[in-house]
Amino acid sequence: MNSVVDLPGLVMREALRNEAAPGRVYLVGAGPGDPELLTLRAVRVLGQADVVVYDHLVAPEVLDFVPVHAERIYAGKQRGNHVMPQSEISALLIRLSRAGRCVVRLKGGDPFIFGRGGEEIEALADEGLPFEVVPGITAACGVASYAGIPLTHRDHAQACLFVTGHLKDGSADLDWPTLVRPRQTVVIYMGLGGLAGICEQLVCHGQRADMPAAVVQQGTTVDQRVVTGTLADLAERVAAAGLRSPCLVIVGEVIRLRDRLAWFGEIGGLAVAPRRAAA
Amino acid sequence: MNSVVDLPGLVMREALRNEAAPGRVYLVGAGPGDPELLTLRAVRVLGQADVVVYDHLVAPEVLDFVPVHAERIYAGKQRGNHVMPQSEISALLIRLSRAGRCVVRLKGGDPFIFGRGGEEIEALADEGLPFEVVPGITAACGVASYAGIPLTHRDHAQACLFVTGHLKDGSADLDWPTLVRPRQTVVIYMGLGGLAGICEQLVCHGQRADMPAAVVQQGTTVDQRVVTGTLADLAERVAAAGLRSPCLVIVGEVIRLRDRLAWFGEIGGLAVAPRRAAA
Repeated sequence: MNSVVDLPGLVMREALRNEAAPGRVYLVGAGPGDPELLTLRAVRVLGQADVVVYDHLVAPEVLDFVPVHAERIYAGKQRGNHVMPQSEISALLIRLSRAGRCVVRLKGGDPFIFGRGGEEIEALADEGLPFEVVPGITAACGVASYAGIPLTHRDHAQACLFVTGHLKDGSADLDWPTLVRPRQTVVIYMGLGGLAGICEQLVCHGQRADMPAAVVQQGTTVDQRVVTGTLADLAERVAAAGLRSPCLVIVGEVIRLRDRLAWFGEIGGLAVAPRRAAA
Repeated sequence: MNSVVDLPGLVMREALRNEAAPGRVYLVGAGPGDPELLTLRAVRVLGQADVVVYDHLVAPEVLDFVPVHAERIYAGKQRGNHVMPQSEISALLIRLSRAGRCVVRLKGGDPFIFGRGGEEIEALADEGLPFEVVPGITAACGVASYAGIPLTHRDHAQACLFVTGHLKDGSADLDWPTLVRPRQTVVIYMGLGGLAGICEQLVCHGQRADMPAAVVQQGTTVDQRVVTGTLADLAERVAAAGLRSPCLVIVGEVIRLRDRLAWFGEIGGLAVAPRRAAA
């Protein structure tokens, strides 16, 4: 597929940019799922790629922007099912760069938020190989927008904390005292597996059991499903609803706003349907 | 200017989407500055707008995507120089929506991260008016990517905290104990004005005086400037360098990675220049 972005303003800028140098590795964030949330820059570098190395969390539609002649390499990284170990991914990127190919390393969300993007370009930097980073919409921002949950709000939350619930040894050994501070929203990436334990620990460390919380499955996509509740009942509700990975957990007073601000319909097809039409 | 995005995959999706309904307000994140960091969705709704209400932090090039016939309304919001109070902005959006116009409310970064986007769509929801939210690359993600500073990293930071240094009464009354926890990266939006006080308070509350920290001016743009230091000397260095708003402050061990990972050249023009060419 030949992706063309024909935007007059960009064409002029284009001439001034140092494009698609052979051997350069573009570390690109693919965003949270909806391919329309790709950046112009991401679409452009995908369209110039000789080879794309992509992760499990990259939405299939995003790969439609990769030219047909380009090679596609799946690097995996489902929980407990790493197709390719991290060291091998880094070695692959080095090899492809040395071969003079235009390489896109494509990751779900933003490559610098729980994406290990830093580790991969460190390996390139150590070898003196050229790279560029294209930020993406991180899952927290994309999912919150489509779920109608403002992450900050003057009345409810003046800070926002991102943590990951998926740690090396399989347990969620988080800095709990930080997670229960007032007037902040906490977003837990990959928190579905340990959800019951996370809710329990938050309450053990002083959070109110009736603090609102939500789990969003596959946010921004047609398979988006949102389950809300409190720390006391969220795990049970989510189990009853049968949510599956990938999921994002959001904890904070801002969850209450969803009742009024939800706009992305969880209906079939690709429709974007605000729940509230003009009265 | 007529902005056309001609992407085959999107054309098909397009037919299935509920486009540009009259009276709908699109709350759109304009990203951190580089117009290439706009999402495809943002470009599309900008191209369909009858009227765009935009903030101070929106990069001028982003407005190139607005059709020439569309009305442009500047809502201001520089520090201490609010052209339009928040209540007036909300009333304006309601009025434009009721008039059946296709409205884009354009904000720098992401509309749900320190953007008051939630407050504005609450006002619309209260009136039963239709809206949609288009997330943007929040400043923290965009700026960190272009400055070569991974916000999370398995060796240095397993959490990332976003706060704002620009509070209602002008002082930075932050939850300091949370800001000095180990193994996290702290990003302070609008932190330039209170920088000296912020660095002092962090040290007073137990952070190491030699903790690395950085201030990034106009990240992702040709005017990007990065000053790094420690909590002990950062304010002095930034004053000496004469950085101006808007700036983002980043505190954490990950700052050290910039020495190896910086790739976006602070050279004239629009060039993207990796610092390291192949050795």
